[in-house]
Amino acid sequence: MQHEYRSVVWTEIQEARWGCRTAVLYCHAMTRRSFLAAAGLAVAARGDGVPRINAARLRQHIEKLSVFGRPAGGTFADGVNRVGFSDADMAGRAYVTKVMRSAGLEPRVDAAGNIRAWRSGGDAKLAPVLFGSHIDSVPNGGNFDGDLGSLAAIEVIQTLNERKIATRRPLEIVVWANEEGVAYGVGLFGSAAAAGKLLAGAMEREWNGVKLPEAVRKIGGDPARLESARRAPGSFHCYLELHIEQGGTLDKAGLPIGVVEGIVAIDRYEAIIRGFANHAGTTPMPERQDALLAASHLTLAVNEIVRRDAGRQVGTVGQLHVHPNAPNVIPGEVRHSIELRDLSATMIARLGEAIQARARQIAAATQTEITITKKDHHTGAPATPHVQEAIERAAAKLGFGSQRLPSGAGHDAQMMATLGPMGMIFTPSVGGVSHSPRELTRWEDCARGAEVLLETVLGMAA
Amino acid sequence: MQHEYRSVVWTEIQEARWGCRTAVLYCHAMTRRSFLAAAGLAVAARGDGVPRINAARLRQHIEKLSVFGRPAGGTFADGVNRVGFSDADMAGRAYVTKVMRSAGLEPRVDAAGNIRAWRSGGDAKLAPVLFGSHIDSVPNGGNFDGDLGSLAAIEVIQTLNERKIATRRPLEIVVWANEEGVAYGVGLFGSAAAAGKLLAGAMEREWNGVKLPEAVRKIGGDPARLESARRAPGSFHCYLELHIEQGGTLDKAGLPIGVVEGIVAIDRYEAIIRGFANHAGTTPMPERQDALLAASHLTLAVNEIVRRDAGRQVGTVGQLHVHPNAPNVIPGEVRHSIELRDLSATMIARLGEAIQARARQIAAATQTEITITKKDHHTGAPATPHVQEAIERAAAKLGFGSQRLPSGAGHDAQMMATLGPMGMIFTPSVGGVSHSPRELTRWEDCARGAEVLLETVLGMAA
Repeated sequence: MQHEYRSVVWTEIQEARWGCRTAVLYCHAMTRRSFLAAAGLAVAARGDGVPRINAARLRQHIEKLSVFGRPAGGTFADGVNRVGFSDADMAGRAYVTKVMRSAGLEPRVDAAGNIRAWRSGGDAKLAPVLFGSHIDSVPNGGNFDGDLGSLAAIEVIQTLNERKIATRRPLEIVVWANEEGVAYGVGLFGSAAAAGKLLAGAMEREWNGVKLPEAVRKIGGDPARLESARRAPGSFHCYLELHIEQGGTLDKAGLPIGVVEGIVAIDRYEAIIRGFANHAGTTPMPERQDALLAASHLTLAVNEIVRRDAGRQVGTVGQLHVHPNAPNVIPGEVRHSIELRDLSATMIARLGEAIQARARQIAAATQTEITITKKDHHTGAPATPHVQEAIERAAAKLGFGSQRLPSGAGHDAQMMATLGPMGMIFTPSVGGVSHSPRELTRWEDCARGAEVLLETVLGMAA
Repeated sequence: MQHEYRSVVWTEIQEARWGCRTAVLYCHAMTRRSFLAAAGLAVAARGDGVPRINAARLRQHIEKLSVFGRPAGGTFADGVNRVGFSDADMAGRAYVTKVMRSAGLEPRVDAAGNIRAWRSGGDAKLAPVLFGSHIDSVPNGGNFDGDLGSLAAIEVIQTLNERKIATRRPLEIVVWANEEGVAYGVGLFGSAAAAGKLLAGAMEREWNGVKLPEAVRKIGGDPARLESARRAPGSFHCYLELHIEQGGTLDKAGLPIGVVEGIVAIDRYEAIIRGFANHAGTTPMPERQDALLAASHLTLAVNEIVRRDAGRQVGTVGQLHVHPNAPNVIPGEVRHSIELRDLSATMIARLGEAIQARARQIAAATQTEITITKKDHHTGAPATPHVQEAIERAAAKLGFGSQRLPSGAGHDAQMMATLGPMGMIFTPSVGGVSHSPRELTRWEDCARGAEVLLETVLGMAA
């Protein structure tokens, strides 16, 4: 089913909107052959019938949510600490629940702590279009990662409700629990529970002295009935998620919309390097078994091995601990992470093998023992081709430039991809910064992303 | 003044002693022209008149002291946590004070918390021979570093008292406060106070919420009268310290005695590397400013620069902190120590400059900012030639092989070297291990070291 917009001077209009927020200009010159009318459903659009989201309201909601977890005495620009299950997370969830209600929804919390809400469609037998994101953050994080997609999802529903636009398929929105996984080291917690992909033993984990089941109860879930949060394959028509890119590709290209090709596969390893801790003054250089020296060789090797072939694969040593970590003691043990990501799981497996081989050489040369153990593997998730196309069409119809790109970050969408069709919409991150108070997606880009989400939802729900 | 021993089958005797500790064999065949008799002082030696220390008692004292700060449920082999000013340190100090009293001494605590005791000599106008060490440890340390020299000093006095051996010069022994400097980061605290070398602001430092003056009061010192703990140049005839080598030179060479040529100079730097913390999945490799990658280059550079010239200089990156230190975040900042040591201060200054130059290249290549700041400088201290010779003579007379070597570790002796002649006696560290529960100097080597100390004291006090 086709429907078209012909957008005129959108950018100028948006800029005027932001320049003078109270004077909302609806001077679009657009034509639209409504798929809804074509489908025989009731359409009650206001004015010119264009279901544009309320950008000012979306901004206001993001700003209001930012208060929960804001550093004391800080401003919006100081970012947020809203780790999953924290008191700030609880407060943020209460706020989002309130926003859902004022949008006309009746949110409920499933057994995994996900906040879900339903909007009926014209045909109750059809599977819903599911969309949403998360509102938990990393420590010292920003106000767009997750928040934009969650509040835009509500904004889409509120726009449709206000304009009394019906869809053939039901719509369902979701705010996933503990996406970042800072708490308990269980990332994508809510979506993994929904996909039946929680790792064995996850519910046994403890954090800050609290077991995970207790944390789930705290946010209104029911760990004893976790299975009830599971969704069956085919229980949604497709899953859509609007998210900030977090990388700098769109910002560099000057494009407002990214169409995600897929979410990269991730291999996470722990390297343990055992040397011998000894006195830094009394141990001659040739007799040392310096674990940090070996770790430095290995860190450089990871970088070199990842970069030697063309491609978009990345590799990072992000976490490193030295023992005993004193200026006057030769490091006896170093433990560090090695993280590899690429759309191709085969590619990162190959990189892992090359790193293992190099580690053996480094161990021999430095008289240390190196063991590298895989701790975690996230299967990559290609976005479904026809959903990618639907997003591309939506962007084009709104007159927004777009490009396809991989998601280097993990998202709840990868869990939903195990159950049904999936697509993601990216908005630009200024300077490619994320997981930082400096994380920024310009308000006009937030609005553009939300409009592409709305348009895609309408397309998929028809 | 000359005095000689002719030692016969010392090793066999010592081994028999340890093999059957209760049957102490005094079957030496020795001749001794007593310098004491020559000097006209009273000599009342037992049996053959050989002033051998009581090796079994020395061992017992070391073993008893090891209890204070021993890990719960552990044994001697589990080492010790007796950080300066800690409760374990207090208990250890109380024990050592008791041992001093039972040796016939009247210990007192000076204003800096050093435990000192005096034994009169034949000529009250002469400056004393001063000797001792420390009993504080590093966390998770061993039972010989400091303890051996402290308890051997008492053993020397007890031996002389038991044998009623008088010396022309007075003798003074000392147990220095907080040598390791783990507490407050003020190493050589007691000896630095005695030498008037405490750094400005040292007394302002806080540790575990306690200011240093309060800690000094806790161990019986008087921070308000710290000046009274200062010794004048020339206030001792010479300073002697028996200590474990901590390196593996003597152990490798199979020699029981080291004659220290001097204590190395130390330069300590802090390197701060600023990159940019960003998402490890979404930031392409060429766009990264990875602080840990730069730190790895710098760590390897320190090693390479220190080793490229022949010599005994050492350089260590022992402490390193990564921020934010998460597997999925590109390190934004790394701080690490760089420590350089050599007998020649000029040599380490030159190495420091070479490292600075290399750091500028690394910063440019990795798109990071690197600043390297000198945080600390310890002037090296050559041991006084005639004291080195006296130690060498003592070892030779006892029939113990010895060699000269530098001390790569700092010692209270370097503070005393600023006031008068100084010499140090080293005993072998098995495998060169120290600052570790595995630190070990064999009991027979402990005894040999103490006997060389006794003999050197007698030589210097004549």
